[in-house]
Amino acid sequence: MATVIKPDFNDIPAYMADLGRAARSASRVLAAADTAQKNRALVAIAETIKQGQSDLRSANDKDMAAGREKGLDAALLDRLELTDSRIDAMVDGLRQVANLSDPVGAITDMAYRPSGVQVGKMRVPLGVIGIIYESRPNVTVDAAALCLKSGNAVILRGGSESINSNLALANAIAIGLELAGLPVASVQVVATPDREAVAQLLTMREWVDVIIPRGGKSLIERVTADARVPVIKHLDGNCHIYIDDQADFEKAMAIAINSKTHRYGVCNAAESLLVAAAIADQLLPQLAGALADKGVELRGCERSRQLVADMKVATEQDWGEEYLAPIMSVKVVDGLEQAIDHIATYGSGHTDVIVTENWSRAQRFLREVDSSSVMVNASSRFADGYEYGLGAEIGISTDRIHVRGPVGLEGLTVQKYIVLGDGHIRH
Amino acid sequence: MATVIKPDFNDIPAYMADLGRAARSASRVLAAADTAQKNRALVAIAETIKQGQSDLRSANDKDMAAGREKGLDAALLDRLELTDSRIDAMVDGLRQVANLSDPVGAITDMAYRPSGVQVGKMRVPLGVIGIIYESRPNVTVDAAALCLKSGNAVILRGGSESINSNLALANAIAIGLELAGLPVASVQVVATPDREAVAQLLTMREWVDVIIPRGGKSLIERVTADARVPVIKHLDGNCHIYIDDQADFEKAMAIAINSKTHRYGVCNAAESLLVAAAIADQLLPQLAGALADKGVELRGCERSRQLVADMKVATEQDWGEEYLAPIMSVKVVDGLEQAIDHIATYGSGHTDVIVTENWSRAQRFLREVDSSSVMVNASSRFADGYEYGLGAEIGISTDRIHVRGPVGLEGLTVQKYIVLGDGHIRH
Repeated sequence: MATVIKPDFNDIPAYMADLGRAARSASRVLAAADTAQKNRALVAIAETIKQGQSDLRSANDKDMAAGREKGLDAALLDRLELTDSRIDAMVDGLRQVANLSDPVGAITDMAYRPSGVQVGKMRVPLGVIGIIYESRPNVTVDAAALCLKSGNAVILRGGSESINSNLALANAIAIGLELAGLPVASVQVVATPDREAVAQLLTMREWVDVIIPRGGKSLIERVTADARVPVIKHLDGNCHIYIDDQADFEKAMAIAINSKTHRYGVCNAAESLLVAAAIADQLLPQLAGALADKGVELRGCERSRQLVADMKVATEQDWGEEYLAPIMSVKVVDGLEQAIDHIATYGSGHTDVIVTENWSRAQRFLREVDSSSVMVNASSRFADGYEYGLGAEIGISTDRIHVRGPVGLEGLTVQKYIVLGDGHIRH
Repeated sequence: MATVIKPDFNDIPAYMADLGRAARSASRVLAAADTAQKNRALVAIAETIKQGQSDLRSANDKDMAAGREKGLDAALLDRLELTDSRIDAMVDGLRQVANLSDPVGAITDMAYRPSGVQVGKMRVPLGVIGIIYESRPNVTVDAAALCLKSGNAVILRGGSESINSNLALANAIAIGLELAGLPVASVQVVATPDREAVAQLLTMREWVDVIIPRGGKSLIERVTADARVPVIKHLDGNCHIYIDDQADFEKAMAIAINSKTHRYGVCNAAESLLVAAAIADQLLPQLAGALADKGVELRGCERSRQLVADMKVATEQDWGEEYLAPIMSVKVVDGLEQAIDHIATYGSGHTDVIVTENWSRAQRFLREVDSSSVMVNASSRFADGYEYGLGAEIGISTDRIHVRGPVGLEGLTVQKYIVLGDGHIRH
C-alpha cells in the first residue's frame, strides 16, 4: 500500500498543514510532469479501482450501514451508494480524462515587442486545489482526475458519511500515482470527519490556492463565508427563458418545454418564464397547457394569471427561486428591456435564454445579460461542460472572476507571462 | 456640478451600501456602453481636469498643508503633491487609455458543437471594482480610466491625507461622465476618511466583485486578511537572475546589472543573484566589481564570499527580501535544479530570469518556474504592462487565479459563454 500521511487527530491544524505542505511540494512535480505521465497515472488509477472493486464495495457497505444507523434519508443514502455501475462510470471517467488534451504548457500570443523581446503567455496549473463536497464518493475520483490532468495537486474533503469509501478510493488513487511515478501527495483525502479540518483547509492561504465547493447552497454559502482562500463556486441556477414578441412560436414552445422539463433537479433547468406582452395572449395559454400536461405547476404575475386559468400567484420570493422541481414562475413583460431588468434583478447569473428572430434584440440580450451562459434560440439545458466541448467539468462557476460557466481543465489553469530575449536590457 | 451621493457619516454601512448599489446599477450601463461613448467620457474627463487645474491645485494645497501640519515625512508629501507636470501626466494618461482598444464584447472560440448549437466566449467586464490605495492622488484618475474603459464601475478609496485632492478629481470625473451621458456613479470616491468605510468596501460581496489594493506590503496584507470580496493583489517582487554555466558572459553581465541597477525602488528590480558553480569563479568577481561600482551592496552565501573579497554574509532572511534598494543577495548554486528550488522556496512569484545559451535548460526554466513572468536572456525590468504591450497597467498580480503579471484592460474582464441556436433543444 502507498504511504500516506498518518493523521494526528489531536492536532488538526498541524495535520492539515502537513497535507498542505505535501500538496505544495507535489504540485511542483505535477506542474512539470509531461502529459504521457499524467495519463499513465489516470489509467493506473482506473485499473486499480477496477481490480479493487470488491474492497471498495465493502468500504462503501460500512458507510451505508453507518448511514442507515444514523437515519440518513433515502436520497442521501442513494447518493452515498457505490454500485457496480457507478464504479464503472468512475473508471470510464478516468479514461476519458486521460483522452482529453492537456492545457498545461500551451503558449499563446507570442509577439515581438518594440524593445526586441518576445512576450507571450504560457498556461500553467493553479497549484493546490481544495475540494469540499458532500456525500457522493464519485466526486473523489472525478475531481482528482481533473486536477491531476490539469497539473494541480488536490486536497479532497468529502462528507463524513462517505469517509470509508473516500479513503478506499484515496488508496487506489495513491497506488495509481505510485505506479506512474508521480507523488502520492498529488491527491490527498482528509482522513478525519472533524470540522476543524475544513476550517483549516479554507484558511491555509500558504498551501491552498483555490477552493472549489461542490454541493448544496448551504454548503457553498458556508464555505464562501469562512474561506480566506479564493473560491470558485456555483451558487444557484435561476435560469430564465425570455420569449420575445418576434419569437418563432414553434421554437419558443420547444425551448421553453425542453428547458423546464428535460430534467428538473439540475442547475441549468429553466425556473422562470418571461413572455413579451404582445404575444402573451396567443402563446401563453398554449405553452401553459403543454407544461401542465408535463405536470409543471406555474406561478404567475397578474397579467399571466389573466391569460391562464387557475395559475397560482407568484410571490416576490418566487422570482428569485431555484425550484429544482416541476414548478416555474411566469411573468408577462413589456418587452426586451423589462426582461433584461427582471433577469438583472432576480437572476442568479447562471444561464439565460432569449427566443427571438429579431437580430438586434438577440445581439442586445447577448451583450447585456450578465450571466455565465447567455443563449439565443437554444435550450438552457445546453449549459454543460460536455455540451460545450470541455470534455468534463468540475462544476459551473457563477462567480465573476477567473472563470464563468462550466469549468473544465482550462478553468483549473491560468496564464503566466514568458519573455524571450537574447541579452536584452531596458534603456 | 454633477450630483453625487450625499454622505451620512453617522451611518457608514448605509453610506457604503448606497455607493455599492449605485455602482452596481452604473456597471450595467457601462457594460453595455459602446467604445466611442466610453472614449468620449475619458476625453471629457481629461478636458475637465485640465480646465480645473487651478482648483485642483488649491484642493491639493489643502492636503499638503494638512500633511505638513500632521508631520508627514518628505517622501509621503512628495507622493501627495499634484504638480502641474503630474496633472499633465494624468491628462495624457486619460487620452492614452481612450486610444487603447476595447476588450469588451470580443467574441472568440465560436464553434459548432455536435448538437448543432454554436458555442463561444464573449469578453465582459468584471462588474464593480473597489480600489484601495495610499497617498498618490493620480491613482484616482489612472484607475478610474482603466475601469471605465473596461466597462467596470469603480469605487475608489484613497489615503485620508489626499481626500481633498481626490474629491476634486472625483468632481472632474463626474462632470466628464455626465458630458458623455454615462452614469456619474460609474466612478465614485469614498468621501470619508473613516476606516469603517474600508471595512465595508472589503466585505460588500453583493455590490463589489473584486478589490484591487495598491500600495505597500502592509496595506495589501491588511486588505487580504479582511476582504470577503475576491482580491487581485501584488504582494512583493523578490526577482531572481539565475546565471547558468552555459550563459553568454556578456549577456549575463548586462542583464544582471540592468535588472539590479536600472531602478532600485521598483518591484521588477532583481533582488537576488544565483550563479552556477561551474562559472562562478570566472564570472562572480567581475560582476560583483561592476555592481560595487554602481554602489550595490552584495550579501552572499559562503561559496560566493570565497570568490569576492569583503562580501557581507546573507542571512536566511536575505533570501526572501525585497530590498527595493542597492542591495542584492548572491548565492552560488550547483546548477539549474538548485536554482529552481531556491526560487520556489524564497521567490515571491513575481519575475525570474535565466541567462543561458542551453536550449533545454531554458525550456525547463520557462516551464517549471512558477512566477507571473518567467524570462530567458532578458532583464527583469521588462516585467511591465507597457513593455508587454498592454498599453497601461493597473498593477501586477502575484496571485495565482484570474490573472498573473501585469494587469491591463483585459485583466479587468472575464469571459462568459454564449450559445447560438435555431430552436435547438437537448435530447
